[in-house]
Amino acid sequence: MVTPTVTIGKEQHIWAYDADMQPVVTVDPGTVIEIQTWDCFTGQVQSESDTVANLDIHRVNSATGPIAVRGAEPGDSLSVTLIDIRPEEKGAAMCIPEWGQLIHKVHSPVTRIFKVKDGIVHMNENVSWPQRPMFGVIGVAPASGSIPTFEANRHGGNLDNNMNGIGATVHLPVFQPGGQLAIGDMHASMGDGEISGTGVEIGGTAIIQVNLIKGKSGGWPITETADSWITHGTSPDNIDVALQNACEEAAKLLVDEWGFTIEDAFIFLSVAGDLGIAQYCHPSPGSVIAKMRVPKTKATPRPFKL
Amino acid sequence: MVTPTVTIGKEQHIWAYDADMQPVVTVDPGTVIEIQTWDCFTGQVQSESDTVANLDIHRVNSATGPIAVRGAEPGDSLSVTLIDIRPEEKGAAMCIPEWGQLIHKVHSPVTRIFKVKDGIVHMNENVSWPQRPMFGVIGVAPASGSIPTFEANRHGGNLDNNMNGIGATVHLPVFQPGGQLAIGDMHASMGDGEISGTGVEIGGTAIIQVNLIKGKSGGWPITETADSWITHGTSPDNIDVALQNACEEAAKLLVDEWGFTIEDAFIFLSVAGDLGIAQYCHPSPGSVIAKMRVPKTKATPRPFKL
Repeated sequence: MVTPTVTIGKEQHIWAYDADMQPVVTVDPGTVIEIQTWDCFTGQVQSESDTVANLDIHRVNSATGPIAVRGAEPGDSLSVTLIDIRPEEKGAAMCIPEWGQLIHKVHSPVTRIFKVKDGIVHMNENVSWPQRPMFGVIGVAPASGSIPTFEANRHGGNLDNNMNGIGATVHLPVFQPGGQLAIGDMHASMGDGEISGTGVEIGGTAIIQVNLIKGKSGGWPITETADSWITHGTSPDNIDVALQNACEEAAKLLVDEWGFTIEDAFIFLSVAGDLGIAQYCHPSPGSVIAKMRVPKTKATPRPFKL
Repeated sequence: MVTPTVTIGKEQHIWAYDADMQPVVTVDPGTVIEIQTWDCFTGQVQSESDTVANLDIHRVNSATGPIAVRGAEPGDSLSVTLIDIRPEEKGAAMCIPEWGQLIHKVHSPVTRIFKVKDGIVHMNENVSWPQRPMFGVIGVAPASGSIPTFEANRHGGNLDNNMNGIGATVHLPVFQPGGQLAIGDMHASMGDGEISGTGVEIGGTAIIQVNLIKGKSGGWPITETADSWITHGTSPDNIDVALQNACEEAAKLLVDEWGFTIEDAFIFLSVAGDLGIAQYCHPSPGSVIAKMRVPKTKATPRPFKL
């Protein structure tokens, strides 16, 4: 295990990705950092009587940072490797009125408290399963304006992709000098789609390493795992647009980086790529996030040709 | 390897699932069967000059069968275990005018021929990857009427779920005596979404075993793998409806079979279930098929409590 040389506490956080936000620390590429993150409710949910009804919604989805990386310039990728993600022992999930595919069938609001111990998530005495810790929110300063951490867009933000877990590297497109990375919204477990709008929301710590890829970036963040790279596509509210964006992004990389014809890219994605859903709690006011998983092959070994 | 006691050639096939279709063979539960299936183009595509423009579209998506299973009655599940799936050596995929997320960017029609050898799919000299053989079409006689094998619905049909591969068991809801199973549309590889409308379309043989679960069935087929069970939801054209159906089906099983409250089912699916896409080549005239993967846990060991 690489030893972190910088530590950032959860009290150093943002509620929005601002184009002009200032870093709490500036590090060199290659730096290993320990970050601490709040659960998305910022500690407001401690028992099953703490529902969304008595939540201060202005204190939701903090992201620890910003972290500037020396030398990061617009057009680069700020590549964040999630070396380890360590949830605390208590998490929470919710049914939130008017949110999600099954909301019309349930009484709401409802909160469930989860115990996370020795790598196992316990929902109740009968229901438990192995944790798959991940970050819902990971992003950088956007090209302009201020984007709440609740939303996802080209800068990242609330991507809610459960592939952003241990071992993954997230290549974030840099829009501002230093990049200005901020990370939060840890889940001990979150399903594709996150249909109630919550995973097992939990605080914790993580070990990350930041690197730069000079002069290459995607239109959205791109996640890289041992066997795949995964493009994202977002939309404020339209799943077709999000899916389309994820497809077009993957095809663009196959053509621009790996020499596919666009016809071959289309066919390759149809026969070997997996189009999926990161976040689609519907209905809800949240962003829609789609993903296209491209398998690593000899012809597609990484998102970017270096 | 279990030895098949019945063999059915690809010349025994249907083009539609009819409510009153008659079997080519009737077998006992537990029977192991070798089936041969046409590629979806029924041999019409042999080279890259054979595009959709010169295809007889009435000869697409044959399904080998029907196979009646003795004792199958409406309300049962006809459970089909795909013991082995063996593609031939030559497959094809296409860009079809007006179909799919990237069709506006490509010249079409286009056909690509694939070589499949020793478990590897070869697209061209640079692009190859491990096969993941599966059946696009698997279904039974519907409750009423006649449903072309091109479509998917509660009886199964063109589900295009790449989890319907080697080792999976597909639990098909029985609507007619004997069930009347038919299977086709083999793919050597198909991505989630199948965004061009084609996988690596290929003929081949398969070893299957048929069994019955008496008095239990889903609203749609349910796929079971070593670590998961996966519900389906379909719609003629609306992805939200398909996703909603897959979610509701999974929640229903958690409540009816495994004693979850509906609130706990909603939250469990949000934090541990994976909502995804089986088939969404958009735009296209094909059905939309969504899936919800429920992890097997001590509390959710199978789709049905027996």
